[in-house]
Amino acid sequence: MTDEQPSFDPDHSVGFVETQFATLFESPNELVLESGAKLGPITVAYETYGELSPEKDNAIFVCHALTGDAHVAGWHDAKDRKPGWWEDFVGPGKGLDTNRYFVICANVLAGCKGTTGPMSVDPATGKPYGLHFPFITVGDMVAVHSELVRHLGVDRLLAVVGGSLGGMQVLEWVARFPDQIRAAVCLASAARLSAQGIAFNVVGRRAILSDPMFKNGEYYGEPEGPRYGLALARMVAHITYLSEVSFEDKFGRRLQQGDRLQYNLEKETEFQVGSYLHYQGKRFVERFDANSYLCLTHAMDYFDLAETYGSLEQALGRTNARFLLSSYTSDWLFPTTQSRELVSALLNRRKDVTFVELESSKGHDAFLLEIEPLQRMIEPFLEQTRAGQ
Amino acid sequence: MTDEQPSFDPDHSVGFVETQFATLFESPNELVLESGAKLGPITVAYETYGELSPEKDNAIFVCHALTGDAHVAGWHDAKDRKPGWWEDFVGPGKGLDTNRYFVICANVLAGCKGTTGPMSVDPATGKPYGLHFPFITVGDMVAVHSELVRHLGVDRLLAVVGGSLGGMQVLEWVARFPDQIRAAVCLASAARLSAQGIAFNVVGRRAILSDPMFKNGEYYGEPEGPRYGLALARMVAHITYLSEVSFEDKFGRRLQQGDRLQYNLEKETEFQVGSYLHYQGKRFVERFDANSYLCLTHAMDYFDLAETYGSLEQALGRTNARFLLSSYTSDWLFPTTQSRELVSALLNRRKDVTFVELESSKGHDAFLLEIEPLQRMIEPFLEQTRAGQ
Repeated sequence: MTDEQPSFDPDHSVGFVETQFATLFESPNELVLESGAKLGPITVAYETYGELSPEKDNAIFVCHALTGDAHVAGWHDAKDRKPGWWEDFVGPGKGLDTNRYFVICANVLAGCKGTTGPMSVDPATGKPYGLHFPFITVGDMVAVHSELVRHLGVDRLLAVVGGSLGGMQVLEWVARFPDQIRAAVCLASAARLSAQGIAFNVVGRRAILSDPMFKNGEYYGEPEGPRYGLALARMVAHITYLSEVSFEDKFGRRLQQGDRLQYNLEKETEFQVGSYLHYQGKRFVERFDANSYLCLTHAMDYFDLAETYGSLEQALGRTNARFLLSSYTSDWLFPTTQSRELVSALLNRRKDVTFVELESSKGHDAFLLEIEPLQRMIEPFLEQTRAGQ
Repeated sequence: MTDEQPSFDPDHSVGFVETQFATLFESPNELVLESGAKLGPITVAYETYGELSPEKDNAIFVCHALTGDAHVAGWHDAKDRKPGWWEDFVGPGKGLDTNRYFVICANVLAGCKGTTGPMSVDPATGKPYGLHFPFITVGDMVAVHSELVRHLGVDRLLAVVGGSLGGMQVLEWVARFPDQIRAAVCLASAARLSAQGIAFNVVGRRAILSDPMFKNGEYYGEPEGPRYGLALARMVAHITYLSEVSFEDKFGRRLQQGDRLQYNLEKETEFQVGSYLHYQGKRFVERFDANSYLCLTHAMDYFDLAETYGSLEQALGRTNARFLLSSYTSDWLFPTTQSRELVSALLNRRKDVTFVELESSKGHDAFLLEIEPLQRMIEPFLEQTRAGQ
C-alpha cells in the first residue's frame, strides 16, 4: 500500500464511484429560468450510491451547499487525497445508509463541477459564458434537479436532504414540487439569507471583481485567473462557517512558529489562525471557479421563500411531506431564530415537523462535522417516512 | 448661511478647534519600542478642549479606536462636513463636559493623521517609511501619549477613556503607568483580541497586500494607492462593527432602487446593504492610509495584557485607579465575556470597579452611537473620582 492510496473499509464506504452526466432541457424544451431567460441543453453531473428498490421508494436526493459538488461519498480513484464531502454521513450503515437507500447528488446549475455553468461553452459564441451566464436562482437549481430525478426514473423521492444553501434548495423543492417528495430534511438553513449574510457575500464578490486578473470574467485560458480575489472571498466566508468558540478552540492566539512574536509587518501568517485562513484560501482556488462563486452567492442572496410564494405558510403549505429541521447553537450565519420561523409556519399549517437545535461549538459547519447527532435523528425519521405512506 | 457651514450651538459644541503638534523623544532620548527598535523624534498630533484647572486635576485623556484620530469634537473649519468623531460625547454639558474637564486626544503612533507613522519621512532614506516603519504595539502608543501628557504639564490624569482599540490603550496605560491616572474607563474592549477578531484582521490585511497597487507599501506619490484593497478591508471590518440585528434594522433585504430584482450578475449594489458597504469602503479610502491600517491592526492582534504582564491580575493590580467598564449585548467583536474576565481580575485584586453590560442592538459601534447611557454612567463616576482623592 502506497501513501497515495485512499484507505477505506468497504463495509463502511461506498468505495470507488464515478460521476455521471445527463443532458436535459434540450431544444425545444429549454428551461425557462426565473429571470425569464431560457437555457438548454443543460448537462448535469451527478453521482448515485446504493440501489434503487424495485418499488422505487428508497431514493434520497442530497442538495449540496455553496461550494460542494455531486461527489458526496467515496473515492474517484486511488490518487484522491480526500473522499466525497459527506463521507461520514453517506455510506453503508451511515446516516444515509446506502445499504437501504438509493442516494443521488448532483452539482448545481451554475456550478463548476460538471453541471452547466459559467465555465461551459456558450453555443452562441463558442466561448465560455463567464459573466454572460444567465442569472441563476435556487428555484432554477431545483428545477434542474427535479428533472434529473424524473430522468432517473424516480417519480417520488423518499427525501430531499441538504444543509445551508442545500437546505434552501430543500425548502424551494417543497414549494415548487410539493408532490415529488415524501420528506424534507433541512439543516442549518433558512428561508432567506440575513442582511449580514448578504454583506459577507458582497465583500467576497467585491474581492473577486476588483482582482485585476478577473478581467470581467473572461479569464479562462489566461495563465492566471483571479486567484487572490477568490482566495480572499473564501477566507472571509470561512470565518462565517466557524464560531468564535471554535476559533478559540482550534487556534486561540497560538503562533505558527516558535513561541515569540516576530514584530515583522510583512509576516502575515504569524498566528496559526492566519496561516489556516491563507491555506483555506489557497486550496479553494485550486478547486473552484470565480464566476461560479459569483453566480451561486447571488442565488443565495436572492433566495427569499416568503417573498416568492407570498408567505412561508403558502410556500410550505401545499406539500404532504414530513419535515426534519435542525439548527446549531453556535451557527451565527444561519441562526436558530431562522429555523424557528420555518417551524412556526409549518406548525401553523399542521405539518408533521421535527425540529432540533443541536448543541455545538462548531458554528455553521457543524452540519458537516457533527455527524453522530444527525445520524441519530435521521435514521428513525427516514424509516418512519418509508413505512408510513 | 451656506450649505457648507457646519451648524452647531456654541453652548453644546466646543466649536472650532485646531490640531496641535508636539515633538517628543528627540535624540538622544529616542523611544525604545517593545520590538527593541528605537524611534525618534516623534511628532504627535493632538487636540485639547476645555481648560486645565489651576490644580491640574481635571485632565482626561481620550484614546481613539482603530481608525480614529485626535479630532474628537468640534470643527476644523467652516467647510467640514462632519464634526469630530465623538462630538456627541465631548463638549459643554456632555459626557466629557468641557466646561469642567480639560480633554486631550492624540493621534496614535503609526497613525495617519499627523502623528509619526508610515506616511512620515524616514530620516535615514528621505522617503516615507511605508512598510519599513517599525512594528508598533499598543504599549508603544501609550508610551507616546503618556509622554505627551507630561509634556502638557499634567502629572496625573483624572481619567483615561477609550473604546475598542482605545480601550486596549486604557488597559495598557493602567499596567504601564499605574500612578499616572486616577480612573480608567474601558468601553467595548478586551485584554486581547479573539482568534476570530485576528481572523478578520488577517483578511483585511490580505486584501491590502494582494492589491497590485500596494507595491510593497511604496505607493506614496503614485497616482493611485491600494484603493480596492483598503476599501475591502474596511468593508469586512465594518460588518464586524455592526450586529446581525442592526443589519436587519438598517437594511434587511431592501433594494437600492425600485422593488424588483434585476437578475444581473454585474450589479453589485442591488441590496441596500451592499450599496452601504461599498460607500463605507469608498469613503474610508479618502481618509485613511493603507500602511497605517496594516500597522494598527497588527498592534491590535499583538495586544495581550495577560501575556505581557504575567496575568491580568498582575497587569491591573499595581494601580489605585478606579475602573468603569462597559460592554454591549450585541457586540460580537468584543463580547461581554471578555469584559467579565477583566472585572474578575480587578475584583480579585480588590479594585474599585463598576461594570455595566449595556443593552444595545448596535453591535461594537454602540460605544460611538449610544451616548446617553454612557453619559449617565460617566458623569457621576468622574465627579466621584475628582472629589475622592
